[in-house]
Amino acid sequence: MKYVYLFSEGSGKMRELLGGKGANLCEMTLLGLPVPQGFTVSTEACARYYQDGERIADDISAQVFEYMQKMEGITGKKFGDASNPLLVSVRSGSRASMPGMMDTILNLGINDVVAESMAKQTGNPRFVYDSYRRFVQMFSDVVMEMNKKFFDGIIEAMKEEKGVTQDVELDEGDMKLLVKRFKELYAEKMGAPFPEDPRAQLIEAVKAVFRSWNNPRAVTYRRLNDIPSDWGTAVNVQSMVFGNMGNDSGTGVAFTRNPSTGENKLYGEFLMNAQGEDVVAGIRTPQSIEQLAQVMPDVYKQFTDIARKLENHYKDMQDMEFTIEKGKLYMLQTRNGKRTAAAALKVAVDLVAEGMCDKREAVMKVEPRQLDTLLHPQFEPAALRAATPAATGLPASPGAACGAVCFHAEDAVARAKTGPALLVRQETSPEDIEGMYAAQGILTARGGMTSHAAVVARGMGTCCVAGCGAINVDEDSRCLTVGGKTVREGEYMSIDGSTGHVYIGEIPTVEATLTGDFERFMTWADELRTLNIRTNADTPADAARAVTFGAEGIGLTRTEHMFFEPDRIPAMREMIVSSTTEQRRRALDKLLPMQRGDFEGIFRAMGARPVTIRLLDPPLHEFLPQSEMDIRALAEDMGVEHSDLWRKIEDLHEFNPMMGHRGCRLAVTYPEIAEMQARAIIEAAVNVTRDTGAAVSPEIMVPLVGDEAEFRFVKDIIVAAAEDVLAKSGVKLRYLVGTMIELPRAALTADAIAAEAEFFSFGTNDLTQMTFGFSRDDAGKFLSAYYDHKIFEQDPFARFDSEGTGKLVELAVKLGRQTRPDIKLGVCGEHGGDPSSIDFFHRVGLAYVSCSPFRVPIARLAAAQAAVRHGK
Amino acid sequence: MKYVYLFSEGSGKMRELLGGKGANLCEMTLLGLPVPQGFTVSTEACARYYQDGERIADDISAQVFEYMQKMEGITGKKFGDASNPLLVSVRSGSRASMPGMMDTILNLGINDVVAESMAKQTGNPRFVYDSYRRFVQMFSDVVMEMNKKFFDGIIEAMKEEKGVTQDVELDEGDMKLLVKRFKELYAEKMGAPFPEDPRAQLIEAVKAVFRSWNNPRAVTYRRLNDIPSDWGTAVNVQSMVFGNMGNDSGTGVAFTRNPSTGENKLYGEFLMNAQGEDVVAGIRTPQSIEQLAQVMPDVYKQFTDIARKLENHYKDMQDMEFTIEKGKLYMLQTRNGKRTAAAALKVAVDLVAEGMCDKREAVMKVEPRQLDTLLHPQFEPAALRAATPAATGLPASPGAACGAVCFHAEDAVARAKTGPALLVRQETSPEDIEGMYAAQGILTARGGMTSHAAVVARGMGTCCVAGCGAINVDEDSRCLTVGGKTVREGEYMSIDGSTGHVYIGEIPTVEATLTGDFERFMTWADELRTLNIRTNADTPADAARAVTFGAEGIGLTRTEHMFFEPDRIPAMREMIVSSTTEQRRRALDKLLPMQRGDFEGIFRAMGARPVTIRLLDPPLHEFLPQSEMDIRALAEDMGVEHSDLWRKIEDLHEFNPMMGHRGCRLAVTYPEIAEMQARAIIEAAVNVTRDTGAAVSPEIMVPLVGDEAEFRFVKDIIVAAAEDVLAKSGVKLRYLVGTMIELPRAALTADAIAAEAEFFSFGTNDLTQMTFGFSRDDAGKFLSAYYDHKIFEQDPFARFDSEGTGKLVELAVKLGRQTRPDIKLGVCGEHGGDPSSIDFFHRVGLAYVSCSPFRVPIARLAAAQAAVRHGK
Repeated sequence: MKYVYLFSEGSGKMRELLGGKGANLCEMTLLGLPVPQGFTVSTEACARYYQDGERIADDISAQVFEYMQKMEGITGKKFGDASNPLLVSVRSGSRASMPGMMDTILNLGINDVVAESMAKQTGNPRFVYDSYRRFVQMFSDVVMEMNKKFFDGIIEAMKEEKGVTQDVELDEGDMKLLVKRFKELYAEKMGAPFPEDPRAQLIEAVKAVFRSWNNPRAVTYRRLNDIPSDWGTAVNVQSMVFGNMGNDSGTGVAFTRNPSTGENKLYGEFLMNAQGEDVVAGIRTPQSIEQLAQVMPDVYKQFTDIARKLENHYKDMQDMEFTIEKGKLYMLQTRNGKRTAAAALKVAVDLVAEGMCDKREAVMKVEPRQLDTLLHPQFEPAALRAATPAATGLPASPGAACGAVCFHAEDAVARAKTGPALLVRQETSPEDIEGMYAAQGILTARGGMTSHAAVVARGMGTCCVAGCGAINVDEDSRCLTVGGKTVREGEYMSIDGSTGHVYIGEIPTVEATLTGDFERFMTWADELRTLNIRTNADTPADAARAVTFGAEGIGLTRTEHMFFEPDRIPAMREMIVSSTTEQRRRALDKLLPMQRGDFEGIFRAMGARPVTIRLLDPPLHEFLPQSEMDIRALAEDMGVEHSDLWRKIEDLHEFNPMMGHRGCRLAVTYPEIAEMQARAIIEAAVNVTRDTGAAVSPEIMVPLVGDEAEFRFVKDIIVAAAEDVLAKSGVKLRYLVGTMIELPRAALTADAIAAEAEFFSFGTNDLTQMTFGFSRDDAGKFLSAYYDHKIFEQDPFARFDSEGTGKLVELAVKLGRQTRPDIKLGVCGEHGGDPSSIDFFHRVGLAYVSCSPFRVPIARLAAAQAAVRHGK
Repeated sequence: MKYVYLFSEGSGKMRELLGGKGANLCEMTLLGLPVPQGFTVSTEACARYYQDGERIADDISAQVFEYMQKMEGITGKKFGDASNPLLVSVRSGSRASMPGMMDTILNLGINDVVAESMAKQTGNPRFVYDSYRRFVQMFSDVVMEMNKKFFDGIIEAMKEEKGVTQDVELDEGDMKLLVKRFKELYAEKMGAPFPEDPRAQLIEAVKAVFRSWNNPRAVTYRRLNDIPSDWGTAVNVQSMVFGNMGNDSGTGVAFTRNPSTGENKLYGEFLMNAQGEDVVAGIRTPQSIEQLAQVMPDVYKQFTDIARKLENHYKDMQDMEFTIEKGKLYMLQTRNGKRTAAAALKVAVDLVAEGMCDKREAVMKVEPRQLDTLLHPQFEPAALRAATPAATGLPASPGAACGAVCFHAEDAVARAKTGPALLVRQETSPEDIEGMYAAQGILTARGGMTSHAAVVARGMGTCCVAGCGAINVDEDSRCLTVGGKTVREGEYMSIDGSTGHVYIGEIPTVEATLTGDFERFMTWADELRTLNIRTNADTPADAARAVTFGAEGIGLTRTEHMFFEPDRIPAMREMIVSSTTEQRRRALDKLLPMQRGDFEGIFRAMGARPVTIRLLDPPLHEFLPQSEMDIRALAEDMGVEHSDLWRKIEDLHEFNPMMGHRGCRLAVTYPEIAEMQARAIIEAAVNVTRDTGAAVSPEIMVPLVGDEAEFRFVKDIIVAAAEDVLAKSGVKLRYLVGTMIELPRAALTADAIAAEAEFFSFGTNDLTQMTFGFSRDDAGKFLSAYYDHKIFEQDPFARFDSEGTGKLVELAVKLGRQTRPDIKLGVCGEHGGDPSSIDFFHRVGLAYVSCSPFRVPIARLAAAQAAVRHGK
């Protein structure tokens, strides 16, 4: 088994085996560019390392040293040799670039003997000992995980002794002393001397790269970015070139275009007489890349040629690292450059205009999630750089917000009239809706990515940080503490819903702006995609906003949200505590005109676009108060006996409300509720059709169906009510009656259900819960152990579980079409806005996905990418 | 479409179309027996009746009258004709005989004109008007659903007027007057005159039969007996013969063998000068069938010949109705006779001995559920006949019990030392276990067929009536009220767990006895079946009992029950409230020897039979107290801060405990629990193997697995602990590690899981819950509406849902075998003891089912019947 490849043995196509960095080094070698040669230890070696219980097998280390010999042959230097030493850099490189993994070790192969000889040969002992102390520092920090600050402390002490402020002011002797002091520190902390043997240094460095694949930051990053843990990382061993050999040497990084704006102009910086880390460390101020034209015109010319060549070759903006050693240019790395959303759009649009790629290729160059930042306010970059987060919670709904802290919904409503408010709660509940609408942002101490706060905030497009356990909220005293500091009501805080960062004080925000590039780019996405994109919207305002974001219909209107409003909840409660059908009908008669009004607003906003409305879904106890005091107050309000009301609430108690009396089970026990809702929907559709002439197109959706006969029972109620309304109105109207597929049994018996149902909408939230058998509300307590033990790599509520739950979707699609070939198939639920889930939904052949308004552009792009990836 | 068939057009094979009664009338006609001729309206006509919105279509009524004409041709009489009138009986007849459906209307076709003419022709006006008044009475009662007591009242009044006590003492004039008064009553109550037109009478009667198919009693019966509602019923219209034409006429019923004992001797009774209903009404005392030999020797001889002929023909004990009209014998009905369990066994064994059928046929002649009555005490039949139920609950665990009422578990324990105790509780909980063991029977006011009381009682084989809402239990005052009566602690009550009846006072019981017929019959069942039968048992006593009932292993030992015992729960609680792994390990160290002891007992009872032990399954909060007082007491006991304990309990609170932190999720978060249990199991197995030499065969089962990596994680812990124990012991032992398949995702990803799991055990209770998305504890609130609306016909927790949940089982079987062809497949859970579910499990090819000890014989027989039905 071959585990090691020379750069001259590979190509850019071998990303899986050699990682992105390795493959690109090979490709640059193939292109004839000046690349310091070396070899790559493959990702398969990494897999083997873990199989073997985190050790490097003998055959792998043998190959590493065999290739080190080949490298010696190529470079004419010798690893560990005093007279003509080969020093190398060691870097990780997985298929996708990943923060959290081990970065770089430079100058590996140096030791006391080598250094002394190099000092003599180069006649530049300061350079040699500078390189040496850097190596000791990096090896200790990166490989042995010693704390960096120890070394910084030694350097600071040295500068103080010498009375200087800059590293460059330290001389050869100082550097030598630093090496000595570093190694003493190492021996003290590690209980063993610093490894002088270059071979030992190399194997330890390779191990450290492999190990870093599984460090917590990398694991978290993978989970958030859908990267499988079995990919593994490769290790690149490259012969050193030195930018710190004097004033004819230097090092730099550059992008072929501006990564912030996308402008087609070389962008970057360099430092003369420096090694790579100095450029980013900010100790000296680098020069802008154009200035290289003055400093070394030939090298600059050569570099700009290479940059153009690489961009043309990769057909994308490149991010490059280079080093100049004694006037000679070396390319150390190239990769597709990371860029802001605005830059990504501009680059994609420009590349098409320049004829570098076609629309299909361009559409693949923008990460769908990035679009989010274009739709929401962001912090001013400069202000953000100056700020330090006080805590970090879950990035629950993107955007940035800053406002006066309020601890109660009604305070937020009041405060918002005079200035920006930030609603901070232990956790939110449906009664907080008004305050959530009024606030610029929402911060909760408890709850996950799918908590009430998170779901509602995403729906509204309001920035939200959820589950920030580090803040201690005291709602009664109207203050919070975080990291020992207290923030009182009215004081300012700032939150970033894209990163989860929470700041004390005010960070100014800038509004979102959509450019012409956005419009053009999204048009291409729309041309390419086959999935329709709908939105989840419960209000006319949400519906209208979603249409401006490109929604082609509503995939889910939740009718229950309408009943929580203060002017409606009394009638709703009256309905719930009714003892007879007649009482219940009387209460429903009060609700009907309100519901009809809600639907009219939504139909007006959507015109002829399809609007899916789901019948009442949650368990009824959610509409009733739970505390003794509130029950007493309600009993008085309603004029009923306190004990009767209390008993009614007791009766509604359930052991597992998620699996209780909800969804269409409400319609089976109280058919008059479904009848009222169907009537309100069709009456609203008739009225709007009459008023506007638009062919209003309602789709009535029955939730939580598990059986064909159950669906048929509810459908019969709906159809009877609808036909009655239509007959009386004389208006012709097409409406559909369909079902959620959110219980495993609905998927398993989809052939029978499709005989009656005109559409299926996969409720992937509940389907995921039932298939895994855990509830979102409770899973938080044990899922972290699942991530820790790497049992789960993904949160199945964020990324759809295509291996397990997906089989039910595939089965339901197959069975549903078997019975009704033209059945309309869609998804509503959080997964409808997640790019990798959308890829799955495209593959199984659904007609549409539905997501919250602000995710509509993301979904449009993700759908286009799925179409390009898998064909129409 | 042909909807009507003459008796001479059908045969005994046409049960589906003509119902059991109709098919048997055809068959008897084919056999040349003296059957009054007529026709059958088919079950398809019944289906059509419901399709058409509960009306009889014109083409069906046209066929009915066409066949009435044919019948007139055969009998030489004319329907509705005054000079030579044809009178008919109308009876329902579905495929399976079903209580609750309309029974019989005799003498249909009579009216004032016909009666007068008949009176003249027969010269027996008393007979004619007696027949007439019977018809008016039956038609009003059965067809028009008028209350029977009105008519009884009129007869009683008449007898009083006349100063007589017996119906037979009423003369011709009295009968005539009765007809008049009956018809007046009818007109008054119905608001329309009694129908004189025989054709209208007939069509109304046919409708009434069809209607009765869906009356509540019939619907309930179907649900309890697995009869699909789309079967429908047929209607039999037969020309009347009259047993009430004088002393040379009569009517009777007889069985070819004794239905109580199975003795091979004609058994039955008859009445001279009577119509069928008189025999059962008990107004006159019927004579035993042998006495017919004296009364009418020729008829008796003819009847015994026919009885023998029918038994030989049907190869089963027959239940026959006959009428003698003026010395001539007519057969009105024959069917396989209902019989007691003891009789069923004796008949089956005798039929084989007599060469009438083979073992395969014999095994099909006993209803598996019937065996239950042989294993449990029953009420003395005479005492039972004299008793009236005070209330009826759910028949949760079979058998009869009688004892002094106790309202607390500890009272039952105390009372049981001196005499029989009956434990009555609002509902039971795990702390009541001791009292449940001590009591003769258990009665609860709340809870369903799968409530704690029901499940535990079935496991123990103790009689239980659950969810008896009519009793009002006041545990504090130690009394209950039912139907206005109060029963105090110590007073006697009796309950029948097979019927759900609850009686005030003492009804003596007789112990269960198993006969030699039972042994012989079960041996045949064992020869035929391919499914193995295991038992669910948590104690050595249960395990030993199950072995005597024929259990071939244990399919489920729940380890959590062991932790509820008073000497163990402190260590369990200590384990739960531990804050560190070390504290938890210390508590687990205390539990280990206790667990090991439990397992040793079970292994000793089972010898080399396989024993499946499930790791800890329930959420941890179940082991902690919930009330403020109990929490305080526990905190004191444990020497921990009350607030700490309270917070711990708060932390364990879940919104949906069924979908929460339980099952193998406990092992993922606290691996040391699984490790302790694995160690205890293997140590116990080693000890028992050493002591007894038996090849103890433990199967360690991981609950609630949803993912391959999750199972692998837990398996690794188990195997490491097991191998450590084995290595130290030096004993060789084979053990398996497998998983429950009880989450949809486990079934969907069974191919992956089978790579690691050595066996699958389908946990059909939880699988049903997750697939339907409703919890057993909560579904009671809405399932009754589902039965009322005929959305569900079966309780999916009692009868396995083969259409929906079954697809997951089939898939898991297929995928599991794909990866591991020899994977061991079984079922544990309530369905493992249900005959129709067992039929399904046989068909999908499982290796075993496991059920509570008392259901083992039922399962053995059901498995044999499945094998006969579907082949091996």
